[in-house]
Amino acid sequence: MAWDPGQYLKFGGERLRPALDLLARVPVESPARVVDLGCGTGSITRILAARYPRAAVTGLDGSAEMLAKAAKEPTPGEMIAWEQADIATWTARHKVDLVYSNAALQWLKGHETLFPHLVDQLAPDGVLAVQMPRNHGAPSHTLMEAEIARRPKLAERLKSKPRSYPPGEPGYYYDLLRPRCAAVDIWQTEYLHVLAGEDPVVEWTKGTALKPVLDALEPDERDDFLAEYKSACRNAYKPRPDGKTLFPFRRIFIVAVK
Amino acid sequence: MAWDPGQYLKFGGERLRPALDLLARVPVESPARVVDLGCGTGSITRILAARYPRAAVTGLDGSAEMLAKAAKEPTPGEMIAWEQADIATWTARHKVDLVYSNAALQWLKGHETLFPHLVDQLAPDGVLAVQMPRNHGAPSHTLMEAEIARRPKLAERLKSKPRSYPPGEPGYYYDLLRPRCAAVDIWQTEYLHVLAGEDPVVEWTKGTALKPVLDALEPDERDDFLAEYKSACRNAYKPRPDGKTLFPFRRIFIVAVK
Repeated sequence: MAWDPGQYLKFGGERLRPALDLLARVPVESPARVVDLGCGTGSITRILAARYPRAAVTGLDGSAEMLAKAAKEPTPGEMIAWEQADIATWTARHKVDLVYSNAALQWLKGHETLFPHLVDQLAPDGVLAVQMPRNHGAPSHTLMEAEIARRPKLAERLKSKPRSYPPGEPGYYYDLLRPRCAAVDIWQTEYLHVLAGEDPVVEWTKGTALKPVLDALEPDERDDFLAEYKSACRNAYKPRPDGKTLFPFRRIFIVAVK
Repeated sequence: MAWDPGQYLKFGGERLRPALDLLARVPVESPARVVDLGCGTGSITRILAARYPRAAVTGLDGSAEMLAKAAKEPTPGEMIAWEQADIATWTARHKVDLVYSNAALQWLKGHETLFPHLVDQLAPDGVLAVQMPRNHGAPSHTLMEAEIARRPKLAERLKSKPRSYPPGEPGYYYDLLRPRCAAVDIWQTEYLHVLAGEDPVVEWTKGTALKPVLDALEPDERDDFLAEYKSACRNAYKPRPDGKTLFPFRRIFIVAVK
């Protein structure tokens, strides 16, 4: 999952908003312990620390590269612990009041065991707050999958690469969490991103879903793949009269109170 | 549009949330003038007055019955003017800093002239903030339309009744507002309402889309219509293992800054 933080942060404003929308719905006032699962370079972890200044906040990620970047940034007034661990098997030493995870759990398979395991890490009345992209039905995604399907060698190589998985339906998470939680609030929001420049949708996916695909392509295959994918996206996302490109992007939000 | 405020407020919590989600995205700190278009019984108007205590707040509605109820409620510390007017032709005496409208504009046809007209009522840097249900593709709605279509006499009678219209696509409002505004932010949220009781989806629609249909049915036709519609909804919205019914409900949000 060695993405390029620079490419990811290119759309910082758009990518920060769902994180804040999720945080706004967390019904916890003074948590003692907060864990940011899949914290990446820690931009949201620092927001969590500012929101809960009395909490012990841990930023947890599987990537040493990301955590190194996270630890370099100044965190005025707030103490954040950075911990390298595998989210799938992570177990809290002390039960946690808020397990928060923004745009990370879609990289993990097996949600039917993962989500109950995360609820087990919560203290009584603790909150699990999760946001995941759920845009796999959109052309940006299906057109990329179509290009992959046309290249059997690439498809074979990708089988061993870490890739994101489509999250389940809202009802799937409701049925999974409801027996273990006092309250479950789920919603999906489709943001309408207004993008500028040439091939802006491909520029966007380069920061996430397209990254492992480009990594798996040989240098001499890359230009052809990008040309085909860009052409298909141009057709699916035509510029509006003002020259901008509208990119609807759906995300699922889950807030469960133990 | 003489709905039953009691039936509407039965799901007060669920119906209040989108109004607050809309308000949370309004980028105005100290408006001098605020108008709540289609204020109904004024529950949101009072929230607007509390949020902007220095503003002159007007609650505007076409229904004298609703406004009478609105004016009866105490508004501690806040001055609200209640005004009966037709939203479609309403013109502000003084330009307004925030035109806010929660779950009302879907009752009006002709958005291609209405929305520009509303922008014209704004002061410089003024904000138009609109939320409308956009759930007309959901079974709760299509099954009702199917029952209507099976009854030509009812369909004929409904033609002269005020009914809600499906709002346009996000891109439609973007193209309409962008040439007239400095910034346009549009998103759609599908809330997952967790309903209890028997035929809870029909109980929900009784407060809104089903109301004019029931009004147009003769007393002896009503039982049959409701039985068929309930049965169809029961099939489309099956109870979950915990006995609750999940009701996904999509809404469109538009925040435009002049």
